[in-house]
Amino acid sequence: MKQKRILPVALGSEPAELVLKNAEYLNVFTGEFLTADIAVSGGRVAGVGSYRGKAEIDCTGKTVVPGFIDSHIHLESSMLSPAAFARAVAPHGTTAAVADPHEIANVCGENGIQYMLRATRGLPVDIFFMIPSCVPCSQFDENGCTLGTETVRRFMTEERVLGLAEMMNYPGVLFEDPATLEKIDCALAEGGMVDGHAPGLTGAQLNAYVGAGITSDHEATSYGEALEKLRLGQWIMIREGTAARNLEALAPLLDGDSFRRCLLCCDDVHPGTLVGDGHIDRIVRRAIALGANPAHAFIAASFNAAQRFGLSDTGAVAPGYFADLVLLSDRDSVAVEAVYKRGSLVARDGALTKEIAENSAAGRKAVSGTVRVGEFSAAKLDTHGRQLPVIGLVPHELITTDEGFACEVSAENDLVKLAVIERHKATGHVGLCFLKGYGLKSGAVATTVAHDSHNVIAAGMNDADMALAVERLKACGGGMVVVDGGEVKAELPLPIAGLMCDLGAQEAEIALTRVKDAAYALGASHDIDPLMTLSFMSLPVIPHRKLTTLGVVDVDAFKLI
Amino acid sequence: MKQKRILPVALGSEPAELVLKNAEYLNVFTGEFLTADIAVSGGRVAGVGSYRGKAEIDCTGKTVVPGFIDSHIHLESSMLSPAAFARAVAPHGTTAAVADPHEIANVCGENGIQYMLRATRGLPVDIFFMIPSCVPCSQFDENGCTLGTETVRRFMTEERVLGLAEMMNYPGVLFEDPATLEKIDCALAEGGMVDGHAPGLTGAQLNAYVGAGITSDHEATSYGEALEKLRLGQWIMIREGTAARNLEALAPLLDGDSFRRCLLCCDDVHPGTLVGDGHIDRIVRRAIALGANPAHAFIAASFNAAQRFGLSDTGAVAPGYFADLVLLSDRDSVAVEAVYKRGSLVARDGALTKEIAENSAAGRKAVSGTVRVGEFSAAKLDTHGRQLPVIGLVPHELITTDEGFACEVSAENDLVKLAVIERHKATGHVGLCFLKGYGLKSGAVATTVAHDSHNVIAAGMNDADMALAVERLKACGGGMVVVDGGEVKAELPLPIAGLMCDLGAQEAEIALTRVKDAAYALGASHDIDPLMTLSFMSLPVIPHRKLTTLGVVDVDAFKLI
Repeated sequence: MKQKRILPVALGSEPAELVLKNAEYLNVFTGEFLTADIAVSGGRVAGVGSYRGKAEIDCTGKTVVPGFIDSHIHLESSMLSPAAFARAVAPHGTTAAVADPHEIANVCGENGIQYMLRATRGLPVDIFFMIPSCVPCSQFDENGCTLGTETVRRFMTEERVLGLAEMMNYPGVLFEDPATLEKIDCALAEGGMVDGHAPGLTGAQLNAYVGAGITSDHEATSYGEALEKLRLGQWIMIREGTAARNLEALAPLLDGDSFRRCLLCCDDVHPGTLVGDGHIDRIVRRAIALGANPAHAFIAASFNAAQRFGLSDTGAVAPGYFADLVLLSDRDSVAVEAVYKRGSLVARDGALTKEIAENSAAGRKAVSGTVRVGEFSAAKLDTHGRQLPVIGLVPHELITTDEGFACEVSAENDLVKLAVIERHKATGHVGLCFLKGYGLKSGAVATTVAHDSHNVIAAGMNDADMALAVERLKACGGGMVVVDGGEVKAELPLPIAGLMCDLGAQEAEIALTRVKDAAYALGASHDIDPLMTLSFMSLPVIPHRKLTTLGVVDVDAFKLI
Repeated sequence: MKQKRILPVALGSEPAELVLKNAEYLNVFTGEFLTADIAVSGGRVAGVGSYRGKAEIDCTGKTVVPGFIDSHIHLESSMLSPAAFARAVAPHGTTAAVADPHEIANVCGENGIQYMLRATRGLPVDIFFMIPSCVPCSQFDENGCTLGTETVRRFMTEERVLGLAEMMNYPGVLFEDPATLEKIDCALAEGGMVDGHAPGLTGAQLNAYVGAGITSDHEATSYGEALEKLRLGQWIMIREGTAARNLEALAPLLDGDSFRRCLLCCDDVHPGTLVGDGHIDRIVRRAIALGANPAHAFIAASFNAAQRFGLSDTGAVAPGYFADLVLLSDRDSVAVEAVYKRGSLVARDGALTKEIAENSAAGRKAVSGTVRVGEFSAAKLDTHGRQLPVIGLVPHELITTDEGFACEVSAENDLVKLAVIERHKATGHVGLCFLKGYGLKSGAVATTVAHDSHNVIAAGMNDADMALAVERLKACGGGMVVVDGGEVKAELPLPIAGLMCDLGAQEAEIALTRVKDAAYALGASHDIDPLMTLSFMSLPVIPHRKLTTLGVVDVDAFKLI
């Protein structure tokens, strides 16, 4: 009985547990900033008006807005455990996020999703989930598991599962692939939402994709693309992550009536971004700096997300709504002073006010020791005398070029050996080719973060160092490592599915920086991020050439070379 | 599989069943009026862009908007059967309505609600229902049935039941009456909405009422009242019915961001209004004439209502949405040219294009013969020599005044006898008093439309004519009748629960006018509607004096005199 706790408080016949006195607050219903006392009891806003409480905080000159909601994020991209992620974002005003556990699902399947559900239970940041729709993402790759409609149906009954995650397989939708449409129908039938992923889709094809029930987009990179999608009924998740940044192009959507259909998301965010700039607060700050209507920016960051995902009683400062509140010492610079989750203080002045414990012990085993490469030796990497394709890097891009063939590494020709080693079922499959433009002069760099199947990907100037890197990752259950002359120069263990670490955001960022610097020290080009770049060399859905455990894929021709 | 039918059409690989070519259409997501072809298949919008179809209609210079939704109406107020109501409103662009069967529930209880559900099945106007929350409306009255939480729970599982209807018992909410809160919790627990009814409620009490989960209002009569309610999170249903008209005061809410939370409703509408002016189209027309942003007015009349009630795929001209469309030959005058329901033509140029059949045979019996007064004679109305209270009418108002006492009718003192005869359980209970200001010089006027319990209410200058009127209503199963000198002068039989007739809107209006004219001919004051005024003389929740079967109620003192 939600009203039982708050009715007497709302009426003023009982004091509130907490009152934010004389606060400027965002009224999400009118887009106004009004001034009032905000009474909180039983985890909810009991009243907005004139109230007294057992605890009262003078908020004169400060602003209260609803807690921030990340409408689409792959938590794994932060390389942090869910609890560590919560520790990192709660002080920035994030009170909820909608996660797509796509990465861990590719490694551990349903066990990975179960782990994420368990590990996020009871956090002061509500983590909701969309069930991955495209695992594996391609037939030219080998991942840990295949998820079908049954998985979607099974998880749709979970309390915090809201629907089907980004449908990247838009050809499957447009060509009416039964298995693809079945997943969508299952989610819709269970009352779930279906998120989209269709960069550049337009016109008749976009109509078909949207009409299939796919009602959001976070891939639009231009105002025109986003506007077309919004006009056709998709909620636009304005993405401003660590790598992909679309806010500047899409900020104009926050003006006029279209703001009603805009949300904010990170998609992928690295620990350095969270530590240095923040989370959703960072996006709102930037939007306002770009000239967006502040009320609309805050509404996109809260109420709109709640509306899109049917999160009732969430996203507003109004009676009956959950008291997920952010107190700002300065509104337009989004200076977060205090964060309240269900009415209780979670963070103040950038620091947590209560410990956030890991609670994933139960599921942890199922996502540990996931680097299964079996017996491994340098011999598996031997290419002696063989002609192999050369993939060319394009600075600051994920796309690659066809650079013909080569038969050996070469410092002067900037050619390193690239290997993708299957690590889920110890099949012993190894894909090999050469990579141009990586810059490495000696040693090897390897990581188990290798989209989307997350096998081991290694780049190196000699087989011995590459083999040692693989062994090292096997030993620590996955991670990132730089090796030279038979020595480990730097490493970041990622024991959780080979994707997430046991460190805090700050420590993770420091370790990650050490690993990158070690790679640069071995000559890695400064035009690239030696680890992030490597992690996308195995994603066979981005043109033009990629390497998987099965060999080099001609993405355009949709076939193996 | 909704997409199966429309995907090939959206892609343009199959012709649409229907294409509205080159139409200006309302984009509810951006508030723009754009021009495109609208392709329809399988009852849904398949695509918005450039399309061809088996049937194509040139809409150059015309406007397409989503079908209109009445967000709160008591269908019984139209005095029409549900099918006749649909016949009357479909040509005006109404494609859905959210009905509160409060009147018939007071007469027939769950049978009445069941009848409404059956009678509305398969109509080209979707009728959704909210379950009445206050039956009976007062302890000082005798109605046909009492509805509790069990009724709410039972009906919440019905497909077209959306929640709990207007919670008029706001004291019950504020004083935490367990039975009242239980109904609310039941509806919320079943995922339903709870509509409000709290005229003038403000401040702390309004916070408590809203916080209890009551998320809409249709009683606000001033801009300030509506704004306060909207700011606290209530959806504002701007009411413009036959009697209560709040549009002029509330139209400013349609400007600015607050338009997102506005809906349109009639609450009560008489056949004359439907025939003469229309339904929701009439409200939109007036709003635009009052200077409202046309896009916002149309959005309030469609998309917003769908949003408030969680009607997915409803209220927009976009792929995947139901093709409930209204074609306007002129936008700002809301000139309805054609109406499409699920893509098929329902009406053109004000006339239905297909018959709308009654389908209520099954439940009809349970709502017939509901005038159960048992043995009745003029003797039951005898007040010889007794002093009885006098209720005073206030022209154009529902409130009444205390006019002391009298012991007989008097033409020169403008005093008629007023009787409320219990008609549900033949208890023989009769409430008697005198009424000042009604104007009648001879004969009697009686009706079974008597809010909210709908007993027989009769006003007359002599007991014999009053008794004959009661007998007449008993004979025809309820209705409205005017009697003089032992002769029936005019009548409108309302055989469905004594509330609704078997006539079309036009015929009903003609019959109703005859009845009113007959009353005026007997001297009824032209400052009042002799039937409507009478029907509110028994509603003991409106100050200051009302008459029920138990006697005169002092509404302010909340007691019987």
